[in-house]
Amino acid sequence: MFLYSENIYTPEGFQKGYLNIHDGKIMGIFQEVDAEDVVDYANGIIIPGFIDIHMHGWATGSLWLNGNKEAVKNMSKDLVKVGVTSYLATTGTDAVDTLKGQLEDTRKFIENWEPTKGSQVIGVHLEGPFINKEYKGMQKEEYCIDPSIEITESLLESAGEGNVKLMTLAPELPNADRVITYLHEKGIQVSIGHSAAEFEDIARVKDLGVGGFTHTFSGMRGFHHRRLGVVGAAMYFEDMYAEFSKQTGMTVKPEAFAIVYRLKGPEKIILSTDCTGLAQVKEPFYHYIRKCTFTPFGSDVKLIYDDGREEIMDKNNYEQVKDIELSYLGSVKNVVKNVKASIRDIVKMASENPAKYIGIDHYKGSIEAGKDADVIVIDDEWNLIDTYVKGVKQNIR
Amino acid sequence: MFLYSENIYTPEGFQKGYLNIHDGKIMGIFQEVDAEDVVDYANGIIIPGFIDIHMHGWATGSLWLNGNKEAVKNMSKDLVKVGVTSYLATTGTDAVDTLKGQLEDTRKFIENWEPTKGSQVIGVHLEGPFINKEYKGMQKEEYCIDPSIEITESLLESAGEGNVKLMTLAPELPNADRVITYLHEKGIQVSIGHSAAEFEDIARVKDLGVGGFTHTFSGMRGFHHRRLGVVGAAMYFEDMYAEFSKQTGMTVKPEAFAIVYRLKGPEKIILSTDCTGLAQVKEPFYHYIRKCTFTPFGSDVKLIYDDGREEIMDKNNYEQVKDIELSYLGSVKNVVKNVKASIRDIVKMASENPAKYIGIDHYKGSIEAGKDADVIVIDDEWNLIDTYVKGVKQNIR
Repeated sequence: MFLYSENIYTPEGFQKGYLNIHDGKIMGIFQEVDAEDVVDYANGIIIPGFIDIHMHGWATGSLWLNGNKEAVKNMSKDLVKVGVTSYLATTGTDAVDTLKGQLEDTRKFIENWEPTKGSQVIGVHLEGPFINKEYKGMQKEEYCIDPSIEITESLLESAGEGNVKLMTLAPELPNADRVITYLHEKGIQVSIGHSAAEFEDIARVKDLGVGGFTHTFSGMRGFHHRRLGVVGAAMYFEDMYAEFSKQTGMTVKPEAFAIVYRLKGPEKIILSTDCTGLAQVKEPFYHYIRKCTFTPFGSDVKLIYDDGREEIMDKNNYEQVKDIELSYLGSVKNVVKNVKASIRDIVKMASENPAKYIGIDHYKGSIEAGKDADVIVIDDEWNLIDTYVKGVKQNIR
Repeated sequence: MFLYSENIYTPEGFQKGYLNIHDGKIMGIFQEVDAEDVVDYANGIIIPGFIDIHMHGWATGSLWLNGNKEAVKNMSKDLVKVGVTSYLATTGTDAVDTLKGQLEDTRKFIENWEPTKGSQVIGVHLEGPFINKEYKGMQKEEYCIDPSIEITESLLESAGEGNVKLMTLAPELPNADRVITYLHEKGIQVSIGHSAAEFEDIARVKDLGVGGFTHTFSGMRGFHHRRLGVVGAAMYFEDMYAEFSKQTGMTVKPEAFAIVYRLKGPEKIILSTDCTGLAQVKEPFYHYIRKCTFTPFGSDVKLIYDDGREEIMDKNNYEQVKDIELSYLGSVKNVVKNVKASIRDIVKMASENPAKYIGIDHYKGSIEAGKDADVIVIDDEWNLIDTYVKGVKQNIR
């Protein structure tokens, strides 16, 4: 199959030509072809699909809130509609047995996944349970526990060999260094998050292989000029990645994002969503930033705002629930607007960097011969025209 | 007179040659001269003298703590020993009548100053009294008052026509906008300091002509990613200057300075000292960062540390008191070490920028024909070899 475009973004810059896809892989870009199966996108822009490394749930599916077999399946089906061609299914901080159940379900989906099922789960991100109660954010305090090699081993086992790609933890907790070293030896990336660490803690664990920060600014000790904390370390250490969850402006003001963007550049920022699939709550859940309680209501979800407004939505209807949280694509559009990011900048933050960060850049993250044919087609206002996962065109309407 | 050096720093870069000084002015750099009055500095480095825009007192003199006629005289005599060739005599937040007395004494010194008297007082910096009690730092709470045009007028009158070059105020206080506009019309620079302002306040007064921030990080609302405050504004607004007072690492950690240095570059940072001449206290003064009480003790000063240590020094003996506070030159050395600043970077932050900021760059701040011959000679480890003020060689030993 060939996708024609005047603007195909590759690591060498934009190219015009026919992107050849065969057996789910990118074969190369050709200037002339004599073939039947050509899709002509004319001046549509072809870029790598987004990789979301922080994804608890989206639209009609939620691993975190409703961790059953349908959850990841529905997430994959819906994520392609917002440009995400692969992601890390992300657990929250729950009882270890609950986590193991979620990981086993995810593993089964990974093993049986095929490109017709939508976005690819390329692994798991464990957000906790080794996080600091003091900065738990929306995680459950009773399940925030001290780092343990044994628990880590059992979680890795439930997830299946090689499936855990990233763990978020608080490096100031007892035994954290041992767990970090253990994960590093297994080739698993570690991010700092939900943490009261001091700047000096970060300097120490950086040398143990910790690569970056989870939802920078949120769930961490803030910045002070005599006590720089996690935020100061994220600003200071140029070689560490800062993950930023959806840029709505609600959790992190655009100007605060812009400051870190100027410090680190698109080279060391990773865009994620940290979406939870809020429509899938199983019990009433109060969102303190949105000032709204989400309550299950039969096959619907009821939203009750602090100001008295109420909304009822069919939780299985994508069109009804898709705007509850800002999508990956919506977040990208905000970043484009707020820091005047170019296509190159976005591809770095949304595809290349996340692939490098979790060690999958040898087969995902850019349009290069030999890599998976995970691409999206957009217009020049970042509207999604088409999504391909391993060369399979997805149903995005 | 000619000063020969292989390294004379000019806005066009380093030049080798004979720096010609006549009548207190720089005439130019010549490649060959036939003259008697040549001082050969060989590989000594000639750069513009430092301009300290935040100087309450130094060594044997203190306008703030002991505002009499001797105060500024002693400051000028001692400042040349640490490379400062001109400065703004800086008042603190005191009773309006006290301030007026200090300003009148300063005016008389300005009027009678000549280059043999040491560092030139090129004007006054009023730090307060229109500052916020909540962020008073070491200023006196009872004298923090709301902005007033009438009080401003009377202070300007005491200081003498054109002498006030800079005022630090808190823009969130009532009537601040009117005073800012008034000062702007008079060509007086305004800095934000000792302020609880919100980010949005700064965005507003920036348009009224406010140019920067006083002792960035200290005495201001801190940074939060949803409430950026004064610190966030200092980081965000690239065209505003951030003044940093002496880089001891005690008040602002080197890494916090480095973050702002990366954001703004040497182009928008101003180095100052905010030194107070602590030996000149008239009543016991507790310094909460140094954890030490300074007490007058006849013609001596007694230092009593929280840990019980005591020191007694002759307050009129430069050698005894010069290390109580970090000098301008000492601060420069720390900046060189901490952010690997080049000579060019330091000249920007210590001479060019302060001159531009207070509007004296047409006659001070760089080695260019027509400007005042305020230069210092250093070796390649930033040790001071000689200081010239308006072409007059100073007594620096």
